[in-house]
Amino acid sequence: MKIKILAEYITKFGELWDKSLSDLLKEAATEVISKADIKPSEIEAVFVANMGSGILENQLHLGALVSSFFPHHPPAVRVEGACASGGLASVMAQQSLLSGRYKTVLVIGAEKMTDVSTSAATKFLSSAADYTREYGSTFPSLYALLTQAHMQKYGTTRDMLSAVSVKNHRHAMKNIKAQFHRELTINDVNNSEVIANPIRLLDCSPISDGAAAIILTTKQTNSPEIVSYGHASDSLTLADRKSLSSLQATKDAISQCMSNTKIKLNDIQMAEVHDCFSVNEILAIEDLGFFKKGHGGEATLSEQTTYGGKIVINPSGGLKACGHPVGATGVKQLAFISNLIRQDEINVGLTHNVGGSGATVIVHLLSK
Amino acid sequence: MKIKILAEYITKFGELWDKSLSDLLKEAATEVISKADIKPSEIEAVFVANMGSGILENQLHLGALVSSFFPHHPPAVRVEGACASGGLASVMAQQSLLSGRYKTVLVIGAEKMTDVSTSAATKFLSSAADYTREYGSTFPSLYALLTQAHMQKYGTTRDMLSAVSVKNHRHAMKNIKAQFHRELTINDVNNSEVIANPIRLLDCSPISDGAAAIILTTKQTNSPEIVSYGHASDSLTLADRKSLSSLQATKDAISQCMSNTKIKLNDIQMAEVHDCFSVNEILAIEDLGFFKKGHGGEATLSEQTTYGGKIVINPSGGLKACGHPVGATGVKQLAFISNLIRQDEINVGLTHNVGGSGATVIVHLLSK
Repeated sequence: MKIKILAEYITKFGELWDKSLSDLLKEAATEVISKADIKPSEIEAVFVANMGSGILENQLHLGALVSSFFPHHPPAVRVEGACASGGLASVMAQQSLLSGRYKTVLVIGAEKMTDVSTSAATKFLSSAADYTREYGSTFPSLYALLTQAHMQKYGTTRDMLSAVSVKNHRHAMKNIKAQFHRELTINDVNNSEVIANPIRLLDCSPISDGAAAIILTTKQTNSPEIVSYGHASDSLTLADRKSLSSLQATKDAISQCMSNTKIKLNDIQMAEVHDCFSVNEILAIEDLGFFKKGHGGEATLSEQTTYGGKIVINPSGGLKACGHPVGATGVKQLAFISNLIRQDEINVGLTHNVGGSGATVIVHLLSK
Repeated sequence: MKIKILAEYITKFGELWDKSLSDLLKEAATEVISKADIKPSEIEAVFVANMGSGILENQLHLGALVSSFFPHHPPAVRVEGACASGGLASVMAQQSLLSGRYKTVLVIGAEKMTDVSTSAATKFLSSAADYTREYGSTFPSLYALLTQAHMQKYGTTRDMLSAVSVKNHRHAMKNIKAQFHRELTINDVNNSEVIANPIRLLDCSPISDGAAAIILTTKQTNSPEIVSYGHASDSLTLADRKSLSSLQATKDAISQCMSNTKIKLNDIQMAEVHDCFSVNEILAIEDLGFFKKGHGGEATLSEQTTYGGKIVINPSGGLKACGHPVGATGVKQLAFISNLIRQDEINVGLTHNVGGSGATVIVHLLSK
């Protein structure tokens, strides 16, 4: 049974002060159904990805909220795995299709983060860490440990880290949905404020509002296919990890993804990876196998991860420049790559969605 | 492909001030694996049900938290649909099994509610309603509307409502895991404090801590079978409902459940239904089809829903007397009925788990 992406839609990402969470969900649901050119009643089930509306707005039960947009009230569920919620919702949706229960389902992710202060958003995001063993840690501080480990072990430099943000901001220039349309230089990143040494402000993905949706179907269509997915976990706390210079769950997820397909890593032309902080893009392109361990920073600095290089990483601008409304991100990655395939810009693409500091990783392989 | 419940475990429910959420999850995970007599490494995926640890403890990412208990870190997800989270996690787990991805998975639900004040817990629970259209409504007030509608339309009396709590407290007397071991009289309930007229204190399920777990497998075993499940939604807000005197999602879910099985409603000997407030047990036994519409209250008062009657409703004591740690409830219902079948006390049982005021309903049919 093949799973196709019948349609995809991404709202504008950014500081959307005139839109509520419900507005964003409604826009994404309405527009993706319009793009798919199906009746709303053809949606048999709804999988909602969201991380924080409980904490941020005391609103849970988002499955039912989205189901309420439809006169026939399809069965619905909310799926959460921190910043990997979007990828996870797609996994749950695919399992429902492969179980034979449904033929066409909606996967929708959204997050509304800018209605609270930066400190409240930072505290909220720390809910993805281990509350008993990493209490008080912010995510910049946790990723600072990973950054230091990579710099010490592999000689990754400040310029290499900065090259991630520079490239992603450049990519975002042509993505009208992106939060930022502003080119950066290596010096801009190098000289931005220190957040948690060695992480600087322009290493960090922003606080964002946004939503994204895809419609998955097992019906016959020429739409892009989800060839396979990988879903892996690792210890919630960094203290229990064997290594701080790679994410084991990324390795496990890509291994699952590639194990039952004729597609090779070299066939992948573009990938949306989880660059919540600069180091995580470098970890991703190494752990996914696109570049040798320890060479991800150098590859980025030498423009091997942009147009004209070995593979285009984060054509959307990534979490850094397109924005990171956390529950939406995994769905947006799928929507963005699916659209590139639909537009014949690429034949094979990949998405890589990380929860927390790598305790949940979802990888999807997509092709024409 | 048949889905069996290889083992089940329920922690003590109650005000467990010496146990954290993590303690409860760990106890349930450890004990259910011990009961199943399998190696932890045989658990291929984990489905965690929880409603509120984000709001109550700023802890999300519980999938990864539970996965971290296992040396092999199985892929994990958290599923949320308000108080129906437990039933929903079982649905997602079954879909994963039927998709062919896994053969044996863990479904685990937990909630830790007593570390906050009653008003904070009440506010948290209101997150299951529509935050833009029912803002400020507490769940007792929403269910008070449903209670009034049923009383007005069908002449359901105060004594009939009270009979639900009296019967459930009596059932809980022999359930060592139950939160309350105290028999009530109709007068006790009738004279308890008004919470939201006509709902009184002893119509309300309590604020509880607790966890429950089941292991589902498609491998050959003599364990109890999940014959079918129904998963239905309705409008999130009561204002959009066609009727306030029944829950359409319960009707839809039982209809799905019974559509592909030779088992008849009359074969069902016991059912755990979602008696968050007295009226909801009456709605449930009518909407599930055990009693004619409007006759649920009378049936309860005339002891048709206890031992010696037509069907035993809530042998565990239900949400009212066994307790209602919201994310655990749906899993506890399955664990309780599964154990009755395993102990040869019944051949066929049913569980009925409601989210919010009926916007999500999950029904499971279990048999020997």
